[in-house]
Amino acid sequence: MDRLIEAIEDKQNPSVVGLDPTPALVPVQVMDAYHIEADEYVEDDDDNLAATGAAAAYFEYNRAIIDAVADIVPAVKPQIAMYEALGPAGVDCYTMTCQYAREQGLYVIGDVKRGDIGSTAAAYAKHLSGFDGADVWHEDAITINPYLGSDGIEPFTAAAGETDRDLFILVRTSNPSSAQIQELELADGARVYEHVADLVEQWGADTIGRFGYARTGAVVGATHPEEGAALRARMPHTFFLVPGYGAQGGTAQSVAGMFDRDGSGAIVNSSRGIIGAWRDDPRYSETLEAQTALDLVAANARAAAEDMRDQLRVALA
Amino acid sequence: MDRLIEAIEDKQNPSVVGLDPTPALVPVQVMDAYHIEADEYVEDDDDNLAATGAAAAYFEYNRAIIDAVADIVPAVKPQIAMYEALGPAGVDCYTMTCQYAREQGLYVIGDVKRGDIGSTAAAYAKHLSGFDGADVWHEDAITINPYLGSDGIEPFTAAAGETDRDLFILVRTSNPSSAQIQELELADGARVYEHVADLVEQWGADTIGRFGYARTGAVVGATHPEEGAALRARMPHTFFLVPGYGAQGGTAQSVAGMFDRDGSGAIVNSSRGIIGAWRDDPRYSETLEAQTALDLVAANARAAAEDMRDQLRVALA
Repeated sequence: MDRLIEAIEDKQNPSVVGLDPTPALVPVQVMDAYHIEADEYVEDDDDNLAATGAAAAYFEYNRAIIDAVADIVPAVKPQIAMYEALGPAGVDCYTMTCQYAREQGLYVIGDVKRGDIGSTAAAYAKHLSGFDGADVWHEDAITINPYLGSDGIEPFTAAAGETDRDLFILVRTSNPSSAQIQELELADGARVYEHVADLVEQWGADTIGRFGYARTGAVVGATHPEEGAALRARMPHTFFLVPGYGAQGGTAQSVAGMFDRDGSGAIVNSSRGIIGAWRDDPRYSETLEAQTALDLVAANARAAAEDMRDQLRVALA
Repeated sequence: MDRLIEAIEDKQNPSVVGLDPTPALVPVQVMDAYHIEADEYVEDDDDNLAATGAAAAYFEYNRAIIDAVADIVPAVKPQIAMYEALGPAGVDCYTMTCQYAREQGLYVIGDVKRGDIGSTAAAYAKHLSGFDGADVWHEDAITINPYLGSDGIEPFTAAAGETDRDLFILVRTSNPSSAQIQELELADGARVYEHVADLVEQWGADTIGRFGYARTGAVVGATHPEEGAALRARMPHTFFLVPGYGAQGGTAQSVAGMFDRDGSGAIVNSSRGIIGAWRDDPRYSETLEAQTALDLVAANARAAAEDMRDQLRVALA
């Protein structure tokens, strides 16, 4: 986790921008511009034309946002589901986005939530270690689902160690129904998510870096501030990725308890609040040129990212 | 689940072939042939050349297997991790494999084990419902991870209903460390996986088809025969996808209890035991032509699939 912690220190900003495009979040003139372009260069009678155009639009949208925030945030977190929604063309856009963000000096958290049995997890771990020497995904860290236990985690831990990358394992998610499994009370009195927290702390024990945090971080939703603070104490060597800020209801105050005494130990994600901030800009209209709309996306994303950074700085001061 | 059950009836075979290629499972002359071909057609100085060649080899390997088994098995289950290991080129191969298998009349279970919060699950659900009218993934069903609870499931259930497709939700996985979370004892005396089983049965309650099974199936590993039989009784409307047969130690006897009284209610997966059967064929040598090696892959896969079918028929008689 050292590289991420250094990037946070460098920018004095423990926040990450979620690059989660949807057709509703990308200005319509940008979607249309690339739909037309795809129509020109896609050769055959391709029924995936809309997806190809959307993938091109998503990439331009992401690039505008990355360029706007690269000097003030340490990291971005593309959510692969939004890209998989377009099929393989979307997956191409996802890896291009990851690669471009890394080229701009950003740490890239691939929010892929993969998890499977050992031999299959070893294949997924190529997200980190690459194929035959080539980095095919361009992620610095990925998110992982713990439901299958340690043999589904070890291949990721090994790959992360070999390539100086990191993991974030789901412990307590930000959604309302997370309680259905994660909050179940165990016979020993603990909750399921607390038991998972203990496993995660244990899985990372041999990977602690020079800031005291392991390569195996945890996902802890911003919508559970008290639990988050208790988990901070319970998992002293586990860095937190905190989703749920902004659109899902989390605030700088509600996440403050997930940081350690030095103001480190966590990074907070906001997606729609930053990448969709342009929607509240009165200067936007559907009659604008695509590039002008992208400029507004970029300016609003930067302003929203600065605002989030400043709010976190105040809450952690 | 009606389409799958009909396909099983039609072939009189409750088994599914796992299309999980790895560099070790594809004959070396096939890997080499497509590596050379990729070298010729990939334009730029592409450091993903090895992945592009491997993806082409995987597709030819899968096609040989699909052609060999399409008339005797009802379904195939490509494990997307094996394709993601190659990066985006592998994902292209995955969707091409799914599309080709469907064209040969097979029901395609995409083993993707996705799962996330509601808005993100809605994006993943495009695996089933497609993008802008185009079927971009070509899957009939996908596997889902339940750790996030019902709001991460509902978008998939809705998409499955709209498109006559199905889900298989992880309940009890086949791997050794599955016990670490799934077997935890709850305060009410049940195990975590039993609680998840009850949730899955409940999530499918409104989707029961004409054979008495819901669209929301369950993944129950072949390596837990007693638990599997108990789950069969506990989840009367839930169809089981049973991995772990063959290479992982499951047998026709150990899975028999996961079927209902009519010999329905489950489909059993074998991957390496079928697609890697060629490795025990004394006719194989590394000096064979690529096409000859693929012919051996196909012949051995067919023989192994027939053998599995016959063993299941005996165990269920």
